[in-house]
Amino acid sequence: MTTAKKRTLQVGIVQQRNSEYADENIDLLERNIAALAEAGAELIVLPELHNTPYFCQVENTDVFNMAESIPGPSTDRYGALAASLRVVLVTSLFERRAPGLYHNTAVVFEKNGTIAGKYRKMHIPDDPGYYEKFYFTPGDLGFKPIDTSVGKLGVLVCWDQWYPEAARLMALYGADVLIYPTAIGFDPRDDDDEKARQKDAWVTVQRGHAVANGIPVVTVNRVGVEPDPGNATAGIEFWGNSFVAGPQGEMLTEADDQPVNQIVEIDMTRSETVRRIWPFFRDRRIDAFQGLVKRFLDET
Amino acid sequence: MTTAKKRTLQVGIVQQRNSEYADENIDLLERNIAALAEAGAELIVLPELHNTPYFCQVENTDVFNMAESIPGPSTDRYGALAASLRVVLVTSLFERRAPGLYHNTAVVFEKNGTIAGKYRKMHIPDDPGYYEKFYFTPGDLGFKPIDTSVGKLGVLVCWDQWYPEAARLMALYGADVLIYPTAIGFDPRDDDDEKARQKDAWVTVQRGHAVANGIPVVTVNRVGVEPDPGNATAGIEFWGNSFVAGPQGEMLTEADDQPVNQIVEIDMTRSETVRRIWPFFRDRRIDAFQGLVKRFLDET
Repeated sequence: MTTAKKRTLQVGIVQQRNSEYADENIDLLERNIAALAEAGAELIVLPELHNTPYFCQVENTDVFNMAESIPGPSTDRYGALAASLRVVLVTSLFERRAPGLYHNTAVVFEKNGTIAGKYRKMHIPDDPGYYEKFYFTPGDLGFKPIDTSVGKLGVLVCWDQWYPEAARLMALYGADVLIYPTAIGFDPRDDDDEKARQKDAWVTVQRGHAVANGIPVVTVNRVGVEPDPGNATAGIEFWGNSFVAGPQGEMLTEADDQPVNQIVEIDMTRSETVRRIWPFFRDRRIDAFQGLVKRFLDET
Repeated sequence: MTTAKKRTLQVGIVQQRNSEYADENIDLLERNIAALAEAGAELIVLPELHNTPYFCQVENTDVFNMAESIPGPSTDRYGALAASLRVVLVTSLFERRAPGLYHNTAVVFEKNGTIAGKYRKMHIPDDPGYYEKFYFTPGDLGFKPIDTSVGKLGVLVCWDQWYPEAARLMALYGADVLIYPTAIGFDPRDDDDEKARQKDAWVTVQRGHAVANGIPVVTVNRVGVEPDPGNATAGIEFWGNSFVAGPQGEMLTEADDQPVNQIVEIDMTRSETVRRIWPFFRDRRIDAFQGLVKRFLDET
């Protein structure tokens, strides 16, 4: 028997606390990205909507002024940064596609600074403090991994992370790793038990995607309290806790609730080893899965 | 605002160590079931293929002699037991459907002893020591919950537990709880780290189903070492660890690696509360899920 030669990927994660000033946030991101690249990161992942505060706490039409075209100023800047540092970079932008048509879009840059591909967030949440359905049209690019020099990246965004279908489709399209830029936090009014259950559920469901698909998962969250501009709530306490899990769901690293730049080594050959002992793809009952494209199965 | 009145379900789990003698095992099951019923269990769940040793460690045509029709001797016996104890009972039997046609079938009994429904294991594993594809034809009843007086039971079996699609379909059909009779264990030759990863992955992926679907999960495993009748391997060290999780994936109970009868209270109104804060069903991108019925998406 021959064994595939181990191939590793050095993934850098930027768990950042954002201010209300985009310039400050972007400057800090640039420094964090550069530090990780210098330390050897080949792939760097940022949190969701990393340029700004999490602006969906209120519904305000002025906020659309923060959106920009793709390509546009941010892709120019991050593309140049990726090229100068020779890293693959996963960014998360507020895309203005047309007047009145906006998306929550992840853009991936190749090491030469070109846009390797983009993913428009497919599942859009809406609950108190996260009024995303006001701002973002659900994505129309499907669940397609983005081909890069470091592998096929199954980039999904935040709310997508609760959906096994999204992870499965990325894996079926041949993704080598799942990547989730994220902005999730506690309601400060919840008690500690509820907070613990929420964070644990969030980690667990994503580790579950790793297990079910034999694929590593990289999740990068923002961190810190951001006040509600509308003063209707106590704001959001972004919980950080960025993590990387291997293809058996095993935790490779897990951040706490402070800003952190970290490099994590992923063994990219391990998925095949794990899938050989747990060949879930072999046995999927695709003949009996038609119901998955239905909203609910109450009338069959 | 009105809040639904709390409705609880007392679930009894029998984590049992089996001998090679079916009569002994069934006698012990009867005592364990009776003890749980007397202690207040309304629903009792047994491990997979609980009447016998786990017979799939070898491929042997004589083993088919252990299969039986449904209805048949076992359903008569367990039905009578359920009726005498006034409990809903989830059993797991080796079904002989026709000469040369066998299934791994869960049978659920109503409190009056009638068969409430059956589920034929849809995903059939096959790996060293678990030669199930030799014995069991994959199920042809789909992923349909079984209606009972204690709720709609999403009964799945063992290998199904690695498949998010199976859990999702049960939830879409309105299941109130997912139930997994199981027979899973360690290869005694694996090192402790690998054993820990496997058990943790197994718990995690199922808790993930609870989270993704806002539904409680009841998983009952067998326990103890069973030797390989073919002496080709070191046998299987069934790891026990039966557990019950709530609809946020929160652990309600988790057994160790010893036999145990336990009653766990599930709050059956909690799913609705959890689904209101995490309305994942609202946002599923069913327009983009067609790929889920494909084996792999390498030619699109």
